Formats: sequence, C-alpha cells, structure tokens
Amino acid sequence: MTRKTLNIGLIGSGFMGQAHADAFHRAGLLYRDLPLQPVLHTLADATAELAASAAARFGFAHSTGNWRTMLADPEIDVIDITTPNAMHFDMALEAIEAGKHVYCEKPLTVTLEDARRLRDAASARGVKTMVAFNNIKTPAALLAKKLIDRGDIGRLTRFRGWFDQGFFNDPEMPWSWRCSREQAGSGSLGDLGSHVVSVAQYLMGGVESVVGQEQTFFEARPAQGRGSGYGAAADASGARLKVENEDQFQALVSFTNGAGGIIESSRIAAGKVFGIYWEISGTEGTIVMDGERFNELKIARYSEPKHDRGFKTLLAGSQVEQFNGFFGFDFAGGGLGYFDVKVIEVHDLIHGIAGQERCFPDFAFGYENQRIIAAMEQSVAQRSRVTLGE
Amino acid sequence: MTRKTLNIGLIGSGFMGQAHADAFHRAGLLYRDLPLQPVLHTLADATAELAASAAARFGFAHSTGNWRTMLADPEIDVIDITTPNAMHFDMALEAIEAGKHVYCEKPLTVTLEDARRLRDAASARGVKTMVAFNNIKTPAALLAKKLIDRGDIGRLTRFRGWFDQGFFNDPEMPWSWRCSREQAGSGSLGDLGSHVVSVAQYLMGGVESVVGQEQTFFEARPAQGRGSGYGAAADASGARLKVENEDQFQALVSFTNGAGGIIESSRIAAGKVFGIYWEISGTEGTIVMDGERFNELKIARYSEPKHDRGFKTLLAGSQVEQFNGFFGFDFAGGGLGYFDVKVIEVHDLIHGIAGQERCFPDFAFGYENQRIIAAMEQSVAQRSRVTLGE
Amino acid sequence: MTRKTLNIGLIGSGFMGQAHADAFHRAGLLYRDLPLQPVLHTLADATAELAASAAARFGFAHSTGNWRTMLADPEIDVIDITTPNAMHFDMALEAIEAGKHVYCEKPLTVTLEDARRLRDAASARGVKTMVAFNNIKTPAALLAKKLIDRGDIGRLTRFRGWFDQGFFNDPEMPWSWRCSREQAGSGSLGDLGSHVVSVAQYLMGGVESVVGQEQTFFEARPAQGRGSGYGAAADASGARLKVENEDQFQALVSFTNGAGGIIESSRIAAGKVFGIYWEISGTEGTIVMDGERFNELKIARYSEPKHDRGFKTLLAGSQVEQFNGFFGFDFAGGGLGYFDVKVIEVHDLIHGIAGQERCFPDFAFGYENQRIIAAMEQSVAQRSRVTLGE
Amino acid sequence: MTRKTLNIGLIGSGFMGQAHADAFHRAGLLYRDLPLQPVLHTLADATAELAASAAARFGFAHSTGNWRTMLADPEIDVIDITTPNAMHFDMALEAIEAGKHVYCEKPLTVTLEDARRLRDAASARGVKTMVAFNNIKTPAALLAKKLIDRGDIGRLTRFRGWFDQGFFNDPEMPWSWRCSREQAGSGSLGDLGSHVVSVAQYLMGGVESVVGQEQTFFEARPAQGRGSGYGAAADASGARLKVENEDQFQALVSFTNGAGGIIESSRIAAGKVFGIYWEISGTEGTIVMDGERFNELKIARYSEPKHDRGFKTLLAGSQVEQFNGFFGFDFAGGGLGYFDVKVIEVHDLIHGIAGQERCFPDFAFGYENQRIIAAMEQSVAQRSRVTLGE
Repeated sequence: MTRKTLNIGLIGSGFMGQAHADAFHRAGLLYRDLPLQPVLHTLADATAELAASAAARFGFAHSTGNWRTMLADPEIDVIDITTPNAMHFDMALEAIEAGKHVYCEKPLTVTLEDARRLRDAASARGVKTMVAFNNIKTPAALLAKKLIDRGDIGRLTRFRGWFDQGFFNDPEMPWSWRCSREQAGSGSLGDLGSHVVSVAQYLMGGVESVVGQEQTFFEARPAQGRGSGYGAAADASGARLKVENEDQFQALVSFTNGAGGIIESSRIAAGKVFGIYWEISGTEGTIVMDGERFNELKIARYSEPKHDRGFKTLLAGSQVEQFNGFFGFDFAGGGLGYFDVKVIEVHDLIHGIAGQERCFPDFAFGYENQRIIAAMEQSVAQRSRVTLGE
Repeated sequence: MTRKTLNIGLIGSGFMGQAHADAFHRAGLLYRDLPLQPVLHTLADATAELAASAAARFGFAHSTGNWRTMLADPEIDVIDITTPNAMHFDMALEAIEAGKHVYCEKPLTVTLEDARRLRDAASARGVKTMVAFNNIKTPAALLAKKLIDRGDIGRLTRFRGWFDQGFFNDPEMPWSWRCSREQAGSGSLGDLGSHVVSVAQYLMGGVESVVGQEQTFFEARPAQGRGSGYGAAADASGARLKVENEDQFQALVSFTNGAGGIIESSRIAAGKVFGIYWEISGTEGTIVMDGERFNELKIARYSEPKHDRGFKTLLAGSQVEQFNGFFGFDFAGGGLGYFDVKVIEVHDLIHGIAGQERCFPDFAFGYENQRIIAAMEQSVAQRSRVTLGE
Repeated sequence: MTRKTLNIGLIGSGFMGQAHADAFHRAGLLYRDLPLQPVLHTLADATAELAASAAARFGFAHSTGNWRTMLADPEIDVIDITTPNAMHFDMALEAIEAGKHVYCEKPLTVTLEDARRLRDAASARGVKTMVAFNNIKTPAALLAKKLIDRGDIGRLTRFRGWFDQGFFNDPEMPWSWRCSREQAGSGSLGDLGSHVVSVAQYLMGGVESVVGQEQTFFEARPAQGRGSGYGAAADASGARLKVENEDQFQALVSFTNGAGGIIESSRIAAGKVFGIYWEISGTEGTIVMDGERFNELKIARYSEPKHDRGFKTLLAGSQVEQFNGFFGFDFAGGGLGYFDVKVIEVHDLIHGIAGQERCFPDFAFGYENQRIIAAMEQSVAQRSRVTLGE
Repeated sequence: MTRKTLNIGLIGSGFMGQAHADAFHRAGLLYRDLPLQPVLHTLADATAELAASAAARFGFAHSTGNWRTMLADPEIDVIDITTPNAMHFDMALEAIEAGKHVYCEKPLTVTLEDARRLRDAASARGVKTMVAFNNIKTPAALLAKKLIDRGDIGRLTRFRGWFDQGFFNDPEMPWSWRCSREQAGSGSLGDLGSHVVSVAQYLMGGVESVVGQEQTFFEARPAQGRGSGYGAAADASGARLKVENEDQFQALVSFTNGAGGIIESSRIAAGKVFGIYWEISGTEGTIVMDGERFNELKIARYSEPKHDRGFKTLLAGSQVEQFNGFFGFDFAGGGLGYFDVKVIEVHDLIHGIAGQERCFPDFAFGYENQRIIAAMEQSVAQRSRVTLGE
C-alpha cells in the first residue's frame, strides 16, 4: 500500500459521525484505485472524554474536545462535519480559512446567506468541498444520470419526486429542534424535500421558478422528556409546545430546460419509512426509481418496437464506476445498502480532492439546493410563484 | 323475470356506445337484485343505415338516424349519450326537457357554463342524471371510500394522483380534435386529469383553491390522413398543424377539509398506457391505488402495533356491494376488468333511477369536476392561485 | 348482420352457465370478424321451471327440463356443458353421438378412461370439441406462446408453475363433493393443478415423466348444513366427515423436449385467492406470469446488451389477435378481466367450429391433461416416478 | 473500549476474504454490546507477498504465507477460512485440533464424510464453529423465524424455495472448477441450492425424504484462457471441456414435521441475478421473501377479519436484535445490503464464541446441509426417493 494518505479530521461521533468513519475505512479497503488512502486521523467531539471514547471505537489515532485544534494541525487534510445543522457554518468557514478541504452533512447551513458565504469562501480559498447528498450517490441515481446523458429518454419533459416518512404521525412524538423554525428552518421540506431537490438538480438541471404550499396537522407536541431523535420520550408533565414548521409540502417546479414537475415531502405520511420516489420523463422515455430499491431503475423507451415496449427493470452495477469497488467482477444488483452508498460518496470525495475537477456535489451545489428551497418557502409566504434569478 | 323494464335509448355506436350496450345487457344478466330490467330499446346514430347495422349487432330492438325522435318516444326512459364532447350539450338538454333520465359520457360539456346549465335544467325538471366517471366505479375506489368513511386512515391530510399516457410521444401521431382548444378545451387535463379530479372529489371532498402549470413539447403534428383515434395515420403531404393545448399538466390543490395535494396528467409520459395512480394519506394511515390494478388497494394503518405495521394489499370483493353481481359467493379479487367496471356504473345508474336518492355521480358532480378544471386552467392563464367560491 | 348463426344449447344455469351465456353474447357483439353469429337457443336445467327462469334472465329463446331433448333438436349446433363433473361424460358422449359440437367445462371427466372414450368418440364422429381451460386463453398466455414460438427465449429449459388458493384454511369450511375421492378424484391437483398442467401443455409441450407427493392437513370437515360452494355453512350437529383427497400437491415434471420443472397446487395456501403463477426459462431468456396480472408478462432476454438486460413488463394487447375485439385500435393493457377471458375462449371455439383446424384445446388436449394428472396420482400411490407412454 | 479482544486469523484475501475482514471491522465499530472486540490479527495467503499486501489493505497487524503458522500462534482465537472449497477440510480440521474456533465459508467440505469428520472433531475438541450461510442472517430470515416461532402462521404446511442465477447462460463462459464433479460436487445445487436448503433447515426443521431431478443444457464450455470467476475469458484455441455437473436442479422435499415442499436451483435462469425466493405456508398464514428485498417480508394471516385479509409488507428492523447495531433507534427498513448481512453473521459468531450456547449455524448444521444435498444427488443417481435416516 504505497498510495499517499489523506488525513481525516471528523467532528461529531453520533450516528452520522459513525457512518462517516465506517465509510472512510471501507473506501480505503474496497477501492483499489483510490488516488489517496483515507486515514482516520483525529476525532473531535464536545468533550475530550466523548471524543476519546468514540475515537477508540471508530479507529481514530487521535481525539480532541476542541474541534478548532484540528484546524491548526497541518497533518489534517479534510474536515468532516457531522454536527447539528446550526453548527455547520462556523466550523466550515474556519476550516476553509485554515485551508482544509471540507466535507459537510446536509443541509450546508440554516440560512441561505450563510450557504452563499461558504460557497464563496471555498471558491476564494481554493479548497475542495462536498455536501453529503447521499441520494445522488445511489447506484440508481448514478445509472439514471448515465442513461439520461446518453439520450435514452430524449429531451427531458417532467420530474416527479417525493420523500415521505411517517414518524411524526405519532401525536406523542415529542417536540424537537426539527419543529423549530429558527433551528431547523422549514420542516419536512428542508429535512426530506432537500434530498428530492438534490436529485432534481443532478438529473434535471436548473430551476426557473417554483410555487409551493404546505400543511401542518399536528400543531403542538409534548415537551421532550428524555432521549433524543426517534428514541425520544415525552415529558411526563403533559406540557405541549407549538410546532412551527410544516408537516408536509408540495411544490410545482419549472425547470430552465422547459420541463415541468412536482416535488413533495411529508413527515406524516403514515406507513412510509424511507419513502423516496422519483420519476423522470423525456420525449423518448421514462425512468422510475421506486422506494427503497436504490440498486435498480425501471426504464421504458419509445425507441423500442411498439409491441415490445414496456418498463424494464435495470439492475445498477458495473455500468457505474463506483459499483466496482464492492464486487470485483462484471456484475449488477447484489444489494448495496444505505451504508454502502456512504462509501460511494466518500469515494467521490477522495477522487474530487485528488483530481483537477470540483468535487461533486460541492458547496455551490449545496447553496443552489438551499436557494431552491428558500424560493419554495418564499412562495408559500407570499402565496405566489417565485422566479429564481441567476 | 318480472321486474319492471327500463328502456334505453343510446346515441352513438362507436367504441363507447358498444361498451354501454354491453354493460346494460350484462347488468341485466348479472345482478339479480336490480330494481329495473334494462332493455336495449333504440339506437340512434348519424344515419339510419349506421344505426340499423349497429342496432342489430348490439341487440337493440329499434334504430333511428335522428336522435330527436327518441326524445318523442314515450317508451324510452333513459337517453344515453356517447357522442363526441361538443354534441353532449344539445342532446342532454333536450333529453332533460323531454323528461328523460340522462346518462352521459365524460366530460359533460366543453364549456363550464354549459355544464352549469345542464345541472340546473336537470334539477329543475327532476330527472336523474349520471356522468360516466368510471374511475370512481372501480372496486378499488369503492373500497377506498368505505375504508375512509369508517375512519381507517383518520383525518385526511393529502391527495396525490395522476393519469399518464404515452400515445402522443409519437411525433407522427396526427393532429386531432383533441389538440384543438375549441373542440377539446384543455389537453391532457380535460381528457385524463378529469378522471383524477373525479377521484379527488369522491374521496377527498371539495376543493378550496388550485394553482397549475402546463407544458407542451410536441408543438405541431401532421395533418390527419385517414383513420381516426389511436389508429389514425398522417396526411401524406407533410402538412403540420399547431397543437393548441397542453401535453402535460401539474397542479397543487388545497381541499376544503384542510388537506393538500397534487394532481397531474400527461399524454406524453413515454411508456405509460393506463397510468393512473392515486394515494391518500390521513393522520392514521395511507391508501394507495397503483396502476392498472383496480381490483386492489394497499393500506397502511398507524393503529397497528408498531412492529407489525406495513402496507397490506387488500383485494376488493364482497366488501363492495356492486362486486357481488359477478361472483355469487363471498369472494375478493378474481380480476374484474375495464368492461366490468362499466357494468358497475350501469348498476349504480339503474339503482339511482329507481331509488329516492340522486344518481352518483350526477350532473352536479360533473359540473363541479369542470369547475375545478376551469380553475386550474385559469390559474395557468393568470399565473396565480385561483380560489373556488361557493 | 348477415353472418350465419351458430345455435347454442347450454346445460346448467349456475355461476359457470351464466358466465358462458354472457361470453357467447359478448363474443357476438365484440368480434366483427366472427365467422358465425352465436345465438342463445336453448337452456337446459334440472327442471323446466329452473330452466325457464334462467333462460329469461340469460336471454335464451327456449328452455327445457330435459337436456336430451336438445340433442334431438336439429337446430342446435353446439352443446355447452357446465354441470357438475360427474355428469359431463354422459352428456358429452350423447351429444357427440347426436353429431353436435361439444364445449365442456374442465375437467372433461372424472376418470381417465372416460376422457379417452370421449376423445375417441369425437374423433370418430368428426365433431369439434373444446374443454374450457381458461388459463391458456388469457392475453398473457397467448402472448407467451407467440414469444416462445418466435424464439425469444431460445430452447426451453424449465417450467415452474402453481395454483394456490386458501379457502380451505377455514377448518369450519364444510365437507363437499370436492373432498370426495369418488366424486372429485384428486383434491387441489385436479381442481387447481389441472390449470397449471394446461399451461405446461400449451407452452412446453409433452410430458415424459412425473413424480409427485401430497399432503393433507385438515383431515375432517363439518358435514354440510345449508348452502353450497364457498357460501356453504356447516351442519349444526357437529358431525364431521373425512377428507379423502389432498390439500396440496407438488410434482417434478420432465418434459419430452428435455426441460425439467415443477407443478404445484394448494387449497390451503393461506392468503392466496387466485394465486396462479408460472415461469418459463429457455437458454435465451425467461418469461414470468405473476398472480392475477393476466394481462401482462415479464420477460428477460439474454440477447440484449449485457448492461441493458433486465425483466421487462410487456402488456399484452394487439400483439394477440383475440385482444382486438375489445379495443378497436392498436392498444395493450387496458385491463381485461376474468369474464373477458371467457369471451376469448368462445371466440376461439367459434373459429374452431367454422374452420378446417381442430378447436384448441379440444378433447384430445383434455384427455392428455387428465393423463398427466393420473400419472402424478399414480406416482404418489406407488411412491416412484411414473413415465407416460405414447 | 475495555472489552476483551478476539483475535482473528483469516485465510484467503480474495473477494470473500475481503468481505470477512470488512465485516469483522464493522461489527467491532457498530455493535456497542459486543461481548468481545474482534481484532484483525493475522492474514494468511498463498505467498508471504500476497498476504503482506492484503494485510496492509485490510488492516491486519500481521501476515504470513503459511496458514499453519497461525495455528501455532497462541494469540489467535479464531481461524476464518475463505479459501476454495477443496482446501476447507484440512484447514478446519487442523484448526480444530489446535483448539481454535473456526469460521468457514460454505460449503463446509466437498464430501459428506469430510463434513461429518469436522463436525465430530469440533464437538470432541469443544471449539465453537460457524459455517457462513448468509441467507439465514438476512433481516428477512431473522424476522421470519420470529414470526413462525410465535405462531403467526400456525402449523407449517409447505416450503417453496429456489436460488436462480443466469451467468452460465453465456455459452462462452469458460469451463471452471465449478463445472467439475470432483472439485465442486454438484453444480447449481451445491453452489446455490445449498443456500435454499439452509433456509429450509432454519425455518422448517428436519428433512425426512427427498426426490430430485436435474438437467444440463450447456454440455461443454471453452477451456479457460485468462482471468477467473465471473471475469474469466475463454481460451483462444477453441478447445472445449465437458461440463460434469447439472445446470439446474429440482427436488421434492418431505419434512419431518409433515410439511411438503420444493427446492430448486439454476445457474442458467436467464435474466436472474440474485434470484433467491422462499415462501412458507402454515395452517394460519403464509410468509414470502421475494428476490433481493431481504430487508422485508410479505405475510398473510388467516386470523385477521375476513374482509381485511391480505399480504402485508413488513419491514425488518428493530424487531430483530442484530438490526440495532446499524441504526441506534427503533427503526425498520433503511436498506441493509449484502455486506451488512456479513456483519450480522460476524455479530452472531462473536456472541456464539463468547456465550454458553453453540454458534449458529455451526458445523453440525453445515453437515446436515450437505447430508440433505447428498440425498438429493443420490435420488437423481438412483431415480427414486431417498429417505434420510437419523
């Protein structure tokens, strides 16, 4: 193993920090052609004790209770941010200023203005950046991109996409920061809909205008007692707090290429767990990605003989470069999972850092994602269509 | 067989006229509890010859080249209209005035004002009416209604529905009256989207406001040579005519019950044939009707134990009264088809005529359907949300 | 309407008799190219009263309480038998001897020897015959035949098929003639498995040898109180009768073309309603017909480029001649149902009677079906493989 | 991290060796409750160079070109065998004799007698063993076991399972050791069918008797030129070698609990990639695991109200203990993949080693698996049913 190393400084050791550590380790193991070997160098968390404990479990060589010390460490190449959203901005900005490459969980920032500043700072400083939009790193999304680019479905005419979950159907699910306009911004739109927007950006291109509407049905929730996230329990006192952002969102989207479409999200779609779906039509065909089957697509092509047309299930596999780290032979299907997609994401990050091109999706992409979402929110506020400028 | 007869006067002997004749005959055969026995009395078509030939094939006792003669015939109870859309208004109005019950293919009329006049005339004259919205007569739709009414999915929160077809993806598909704003009104919206609107009316209730957008990609089509409908061939001269209405449509819908939703239609969704889909969420569950499987639903219910939740496929059957004409025992599934749904529609027509209640869906329903569609079109024209009044 | 008539004499006015009457009427209406016009001439049932009542409802001109009078009526061309299995033999034999064409519900007879006699009698007398194996008249089966015949899946290698239902999972479902070895022969095999065998005969060809096994889990059932069929209720006394034939059956099949396969049936497959499935592989591809979706197939073809292979859903439609009676234009899908398949069956019967060729499937096919089933039963009895001779 | 370590000695650095190394590392990271911390201690391969290179990439501390040196190393706790099948026996036997726990890829050995000797040796020496049957470690299989054990589907009546792949449909796929009776034993049965047998053992229990049949259609294959496995290319000379074992296999199975069933396998099922399917019926319900969706099951239960019965899709998740390493909250679905299942397998291995109980599935299970397969092969050879003794 003689490839040059890429030293990772990770901030945060929760579920997502763990997933990133796992992905870096596995990318180094699985991809033989990786231009740089990722090394789990330092883990930062809120206290030195927390950081040390997680560092031992994740396999980091060092740990710290102060993330800023990593910025000063010349050995560290990449700062990887997995902390709550509101902390992203300061960490990313200082990391950029320290000349580090930055890999940040989505959404990049809470406000659009902050995202713009990060985009510009990274550009000015010349560092590489990536926002962790994992739904455009699935084998299905990567394959769809190839099919569209080679013209299989002709000129694009329509996008239809949603991300539905049902966790908040429980009226006793406690209030959390996700219900706060200040801490989370929008509700299901920013949390779930942003993934759908990322797929639309990736496969459809720019957005010209949007018009949205939203609804909230669970208007107050119990104050939180103990635990957090999906494992949280309600406060025993019976106090209830107001839910400040929407349960579900629907938007019409007009793309700069002339196509139309809809984007939706819900956190109260009872029965849905990982309910992401997208469908793209063109003059010559239609591609469908359905549910949790992110290793496959359905495609119908008008170019086929009339009586032999139909939706064909294509298994994603060796058609997609990133797939080949997992199986060393010409293959398709085989069941990559959620965590494998994180490995693909890290693969792309490392190639982006080592190469001449931008990483994809970088902070400019993340900013654009938030700009589209902000336009959708603005449309709701003013009850009219909002056109995105340049 | 001692039940009283119901004499049918059918106008039109094309595909749909044939389907109606078939349905009346079969309803009389299959339903033992039918309050009136439908009799194929007279068939009217453009010429006496056409009418006579079709009458023989369909099993009508009489025929005529002049539909108005049927209005004067005191033996005829029901006028059944299956002619091109632009002819519906005069026929229906005169039939109402003659005191006949009227069964009319969708859409009721080309203009909203005409629909309103028919609604009011029928109400004033006290005759029974029905518009042939067959997508709310499928076993799936009838079962969904029962499940929603008994509270299985709680308070309704969202509707998602579309009807996609791909016939017009062929750029050589000739121009037809369907491409004419004057003869057809809107494009995919009126033709296909109106079915989705009918499902939303049936299962969700009233619409408070809408906002729509549309796109056209095939802007001109060859002038028509010979044949008609899906079997038409282009004119050999190469002349092309402008397509005046939209290929695809998307709308946001806000319902009077507070729910939100989207409604879409496309005639250029390559690969889709009978691509109708709808999904309804409530605070307690979600119901999905997918594709051509109109004998079944998927339902997820929040009320089930957490680790036993999931989407269950319910076969529609004996839970639905109208199903029981087809199989004489307690059953479900069994594969009812498109033509069987027409039999259910006729079953409901006959019960509606014989009973005290309105037929469902009557001309008031058809008018409301067109009012919603008109609001969607108006929204496109003025690029803003349109609120429907009382 | 100047085509020559074909006068039908139907025996039996139950569910299946009604379905046949419906199918004859509809075939006459829907198929413009039918060589003969079916006419509902006479209906026979157990008593003159029963027959008269059903004749009125079904649209027969005449009725009789004695089926033999129909054999003597020179106007009648076809005897259609829908009575219980044990009555088929006498009726069919006498009809043949009277020179009538015979259309008979499956299974042809209770014993193999009786089936052989009918086959030989029909051949000797030169009348046309058909056994009502409706699962080879679905659009899916007809399309599969075309695809296989044109070589889409290469040399056939394997058949996998079953028919599962779950009605008998109810331990309180009363004992019926279906549970009697004498009256019904085998249990799920003859009732349900025979359909799978018919598909195998149609699409795979001859059977060389079989080996079977069977199981019975509900060994006694309540004596029947009132009602019949799936609507029957148990006798209040609590008496139970022994179930004499198998609940479920599995067989290995070796075909004369060298392919292998399995055939299964069950009447206690809890949750299954119309659970028919078959799958055929060849050296070049695989075809799957799944569940109640008998309007479509899935096909994978090895001849496609490697990275573009996958299972494609083909909607059956205008590729299949018989489909075109239902929709008058080039179409596919559209949801034909169970009762429409009966219309296709009658279409083929009428063409068979009018043409030079045998009807398909005729009594020779029905005999072969029973010969295969008899070999499966024999295999169970002697616990060894049974080879079918010529 | 204060838990005791478990030192792993891995033999083989191919695709499967890499997958094991990945799984051990990840199990240590993901499961906080793991009783022992796996440590990648030593990697052995055919040469010291190969071993050193892979050890660096996989993260092993040591490496060796001689696997026997690991047996003498007192630090090593577990020998993990991922070499070609024919090498398993010597390695496993010597490891057992050295007092090591042994984790071995399937199939345990080439001959039944060798498997029996390993089983007995492990039992005599008191070491823990595991055979890597990954299809009983999927969330779907683990959930099915729980559902069956708690009685959801009643008394078991039938098993239906197969594993189909289509790689060998390419007639130019070169001859390999998999085509050799001596090196591989049976063809698709041992390679693919053994997985189905493992599921049957796990969920149905013991096998009483079997009867099988097999077919081979590609009777000779090109001699191999370069490459190996699915990436192999044919020898340019055009030489062809005889295929000595079967392309596809079908068996009837009779279980000791009285249930019946079928088991099938194919390596020439064109279009299938990871085509594993199994379905289990009981007197009270049916469970289906379909295709690559090994995170979910379909279940129908007779105990539900008649008009509310149907197949429900259950997402496997927190109902299954092993799932909870991946997501730290009460969850289901989320898309675990092939490689995650290996992590579950290793989780179970480590718990098995640390606990009082046997590992599952141990060498006794692996021996039983081969005993069933040997009986199936014997049945083909003697063309009769084979009863398995004690």
